[in-house]
Amino acid sequence: MESHAAAGAAPSPAIVFDTLFAYQRSAALCAAIELGVFGAIGEGLQDVASLARRCSASERGIRILCDYLTVIELLAKENGRYRHTTTSAVFLDPASPACVASTSRFLCNPKFADTFARLADIVRSGRTVMPGAGTVEPENPEWVEFANGMAPMMAPMAGPLSALVLKDVSGPVRVLDVAAGHGLFGIEVAMQNPQARIVALDWAAVLEVAKANAQKAGVADRYETLPGSAFDVNFGGPYDIVLLTNFLHHFDPDTCVGLLKKVHAVLKPGGQAAALEFVPNEDRVSPPVQAAFSLVMLATTASGDAYTFTELEAMYRQAGFERVTADPMPTGTHTVVIGRVS
Amino acid sequence: MESHAAAGAAPSPAIVFDTLFAYQRSAALCAAIELGVFGAIGEGLQDVASLARRCSASERGIRILCDYLTVIELLAKENGRYRHTTTSAVFLDPASPACVASTSRFLCNPKFADTFARLADIVRSGRTVMPGAGTVEPENPEWVEFANGMAPMMAPMAGPLSALVLKDVSGPVRVLDVAAGHGLFGIEVAMQNPQARIVALDWAAVLEVAKANAQKAGVADRYETLPGSAFDVNFGGPYDIVLLTNFLHHFDPDTCVGLLKKVHAVLKPGGQAAALEFVPNEDRVSPPVQAAFSLVMLATTASGDAYTFTELEAMYRQAGFERVTADPMPTGTHTVVIGRVS
Repeated sequence: MESHAAAGAAPSPAIVFDTLFAYQRSAALCAAIELGVFGAIGEGLQDVASLARRCSASERGIRILCDYLTVIELLAKENGRYRHTTTSAVFLDPASPACVASTSRFLCNPKFADTFARLADIVRSGRTVMPGAGTVEPENPEWVEFANGMAPMMAPMAGPLSALVLKDVSGPVRVLDVAAGHGLFGIEVAMQNPQARIVALDWAAVLEVAKANAQKAGVADRYETLPGSAFDVNFGGPYDIVLLTNFLHHFDPDTCVGLLKKVHAVLKPGGQAAALEFVPNEDRVSPPVQAAFSLVMLATTASGDAYTFTELEAMYRQAGFERVTADPMPTGTHTVVIGRVS
Repeated sequence: MESHAAAGAAPSPAIVFDTLFAYQRSAALCAAIELGVFGAIGEGLQDVASLARRCSASERGIRILCDYLTVIELLAKENGRYRHTTTSAVFLDPASPACVASTSRFLCNPKFADTFARLADIVRSGRTVMPGAGTVEPENPEWVEFANGMAPMMAPMAGPLSALVLKDVSGPVRVLDVAAGHGLFGIEVAMQNPQARIVALDWAAVLEVAKANAQKAGVADRYETLPGSAFDVNFGGPYDIVLLTNFLHHFDPDTCVGLLKKVHAVLKPGGQAAALEFVPNEDRVSPPVQAAFSLVMLATTASGDAYTFTELEAMYRQAGFERVTADPMPTGTHTVVIGRVS
């Protein structure tokens, strides 16, 4: 499956077939997570019969699934016994604090698969085939799934993002967390600055997840919620910091500028708006994760995109912001783009 | 997307997310083939506007799709213009004689995607969720799609397979091509040996494709067809060679042995049965393509598998064959396993 032609070798169609079959990798991983295979292996079960019993599955199914996971390097196999790889132990075993398996609830959502199955139609029309505005339709239940499942993907960025926005801020600080989702980013700001007060904005059903997380983190007394659409509700304020995490990419530049103006209006002098974004290079084809994200926006929104820094900077400036900067996150996938109010 | 952790680097969840998103690779390639993107690029169109016009698609859609194809190394981009990579020029441009794009008609069939979407259920029960026996249900229209689309994947093996089975044969030779599909293998035997007569067996609708291919190859006068199930029809004979290409993996060992006995009974002394198969190593997790194929059999059949050489040899011997040999094909993906009649 990894047999990209080596330099100088005869051209091979291997990468073509690997790509045509790639959907099976997603299916295998999602099935293994759903069946609890990685947890069972972490508990020390290593043979087909024990794993099948533990996962309430057939031996034939478990044997073929675990062999396939070994082929794609998400398990190891030796003398007929399966064990974790470094990756599966750290990121797929539910007993690991860095486990990201819950992200499959959002990422393997059949609605996305169904949408991508119609990608040719989407490319023809230039917009999602999902009803209305796609994933950003009001009260879309996908965002509850996102809030519940995606926190482990975002967690490694919460610390660095909070440190960045709090760097030049001292004393009491008011923060608006737009499209708060799981709430992780605002909560982390509250944890890093005991005088920070957070207002989390999202659909009401999503805010239940954020509120529960704020409670768990012990910052509930400094955590308010503001249910509704970022485009419609009154933000209140004024604020020192507005967080816009994984949000701007859902909309076209004009809509982003409109929102950024609304954000600018509720920021104090010296305040900052911090967007967490997939930011591809100007060539739009690198780095791979950031550039590839554009396809998700094509497939699931009416006019969103993975914007380059030049594009984001222009939006910020049109909305009245100054000194727009980009800080790559240590995960290597996201960038924090901050605009400041003079 | 290619960022598997380098040796010694901190563990990274990149391979997990790459796997969860892998279905988007299949979707992008299938959409590009359907829209004619690779043909348009081969015609010299390089910019988004021209490609969008040629493919009757939106500029936004084409831009994002072609950027994505560049990320997954199936196109190249320089100064905002797209061009073929070596792989896409040879294997995806319909003007190339080695083009395998038509395989997407079979491989991107939504029935397969829908089936893999239920992989957890399949692993639980140990068999396909498709109705009845899955892909091997009588008169399954998928096999017409297979015959029409998959020939370019199999074509590089037809020459070597025919040379192998004809190696020790001279003069008039009668060949039974079981589950002939596109007919390529039997047709190639007829082309390599002007005294060969072929009987092609498959569902009637599939044989129309094989017959048309025999006509095109100029061997129609030595090409007969035998419509029906390999398990039910009278094979006629006797034969010097029986071809069983991409067939045994759909069934359990007992069923394979039963069929091989039926084949043995219609072979002349000194005759041979040649199976073309994905044959994984005894560890069942290498080589990757052969080992991974087992998952396709889990998902789409009741009890098929990618069998090891030891297993295939045992089936042949149980059916009365001798001197069972394995010859890997130059594609690196398939092996020809031959059993001989004493």
